[in-house]
Amino acid sequence: MYQKRIGRVLEAMAEMGLEQMLISDPDSIWYLTGYYVFPWERLYALYLKADGNHKFFLNKLFPVPESEFEQVWFTDTDDYLAILAANVDGEKPIGVDKNWPARFLIPLMEHNPNSRCVVASDCVDDARACKDEAEQDLMRIASKINDDVMEKVSASIKEGMTEREVAEYIVSQYDAAGCDDTSFMPIVSYGANAADPHHEADNTRLKAGDCIVIDMGCRKDRYCSDMTRTFFCKSADPKFAAIHDIVREANELAESLIKPGIVLSELDKAARDHISKAGYGEYFTHRLGHFIGQTDHEKGDVSAVSTIVAKPGMIFSIEPGVYLPGEFGVRIEDLVLVTEDGCEILNKVDKHWNIVG
Amino acid sequence: MYQKRIGRVLEAMAEMGLEQMLISDPDSIWYLTGYYVFPWERLYALYLKADGNHKFFLNKLFPVPESEFEQVWFTDTDDYLAILAANVDGEKPIGVDKNWPARFLIPLMEHNPNSRCVVASDCVDDARACKDEAEQDLMRIASKINDDVMEKVSASIKEGMTEREVAEYIVSQYDAAGCDDTSFMPIVSYGANAADPHHEADNTRLKAGDCIVIDMGCRKDRYCSDMTRTFFCKSADPKFAAIHDIVREANELAESLIKPGIVLSELDKAARDHISKAGYGEYFTHRLGHFIGQTDHEKGDVSAVSTIVAKPGMIFSIEPGVYLPGEFGVRIEDLVLVTEDGCEILNKVDKHWNIVG
Repeated sequence: MYQKRIGRVLEAMAEMGLEQMLISDPDSIWYLTGYYVFPWERLYALYLKADGNHKFFLNKLFPVPESEFEQVWFTDTDDYLAILAANVDGEKPIGVDKNWPARFLIPLMEHNPNSRCVVASDCVDDARACKDEAEQDLMRIASKINDDVMEKVSASIKEGMTEREVAEYIVSQYDAAGCDDTSFMPIVSYGANAADPHHEADNTRLKAGDCIVIDMGCRKDRYCSDMTRTFFCKSADPKFAAIHDIVREANELAESLIKPGIVLSELDKAARDHISKAGYGEYFTHRLGHFIGQTDHEKGDVSAVSTIVAKPGMIFSIEPGVYLPGEFGVRIEDLVLVTEDGCEILNKVDKHWNIVG
Repeated sequence: MYQKRIGRVLEAMAEMGLEQMLISDPDSIWYLTGYYVFPWERLYALYLKADGNHKFFLNKLFPVPESEFEQVWFTDTDDYLAILAANVDGEKPIGVDKNWPARFLIPLMEHNPNSRCVVASDCVDDARACKDEAEQDLMRIASKINDDVMEKVSASIKEGMTEREVAEYIVSQYDAAGCDDTSFMPIVSYGANAADPHHEADNTRLKAGDCIVIDMGCRKDRYCSDMTRTFFCKSADPKFAAIHDIVREANELAESLIKPGIVLSELDKAARDHISKAGYGEYFTHRLGHFIGQTDHEKGDVSAVSTIVAKPGMIFSIEPGVYLPGEFGVRIEDLVLVTEDGCEILNKVDKHWNIVG
């Protein structure tokens, strides 16, 4: 599995004309090797070389077992940047990933003045965007937990509960399900609070007639889920219920179009056009979706300017919303997996405007 | 105030022979301008120039008001790295801060091949290490809240409570005191759990005879507190109580030595020697302290290899500990502010081995 993943990165490097690359993102290194280290401020890198002589640059503080990669060890008091520089080909261009910091990059360039550094994150990020089977299974498991917890939340939320109490309940349920963590702090927004798509759960208490936006995700065995549903407490204002229907239709319309070959901007356009036709286009204030995997937001978006072409294995969110300032908000979000001839919707929780509380 | 702070950075740049510098750390930019933006993955930088023609590089998504700095605006679809490159002096070395990522640094260097980039974070970080009066006041306020909450915790902790319940109580008390946030998730460790200095609070219940390590800090108006006390539930094992005394003496000894001019490694040595003489040196497994300010750990440490010379305004922690695997742990930590002739200890909570529960 790791050989295959590394092979995909090497192919992308070859297309960029690169024979060597340093990868420092711990999630990417885990993806390519199965080893996870969080290095804090220390140097930590996987070096991939076209000829297969890959190397691992490791501080002796990191507990990494023996592996098929050559391991280059150093301590805090070694001149580890000189060691790094001596272990790469100083005469050829070298790819680095996008967030590699100046404190490592500049000394490496000074040690190897004949080598040019090139930002080459896409080689790894594009590989990570298409999930292989093992990853698809983990994404399904995380979304299944998310579905189960959403069902529990909708069954147990009651008039008078604060947003924060509901958010804490969600976190405790993830905990009970054996999750690593949340993918992000749950968003629980009542009534006018829901008009802010990123409202932070506070001590507002649920009242009859309120809409309830719940946007939540867990992280299980490193992979993330992310789903939003919008409920009403006791009763639904007919105007808001009608907007809920429009947003659900936009979500379902976009999902119905997903298949290999479609440009992702077309999905955004379809959802946005549906909402605009109903007169609420200006209140759909964000992109339709984002890629997801080991972190909640990974490289790749589903927006009006996205030129990404859907390929089997891609997983992203479809999350149209309408936000009426001071009044109300609704968002409906699923994760979808692109298949050979369409898509698999990873979330199964009913999307209609159900009454709770 | 901001003029003064910028002046200190410009002086340090002059000492390094730099006429220009790009600062990207949002905390540093807030420190120098009073504006805080969290730019996610977007370009955001303050450009300081020896001649006073400072500039702010800003995405139109960022809500920054007019200021005395020239503002250079761009959007996501502009070639903002070309704009940045055209606005610096392409013929002279340019300082950048340590974490500036490859995705900005490499294009800047390619646009300006005659300019050399130099890691120059120290110019800002060293200024931030010496707190001015406004900052000292904020640090005192954050530590006063921390003292008050520690007193409440020691009065309310009871046999049978889980570590997590205590941690949640601490967070709720910070919240009630109007804090921005915690400086870090509170560490609450009972009995053998305390032998791991970074134990994460879990569902372990407090039993009579347990030691209780509580390491906690809040963030109030951007500035952090951080303190540790170690209690015993109902009764103290005489061996553990004696070790507690030794660690407290090491803490007090190091604090008694602090004054301008002392090299910080001497503080670590004094505390470590005291613990070693009592036979527990090998169980004091970490450095004596760290600098703190807008984040819990800032540049600067108090360790065996620290060559930093104490100066008035520096604030750091003094936190010796002894950890007996499988048995017990104790740590006693204050924040201290270096004054003209000694130090001010920011935490007032009694350090003796008190009985609680």
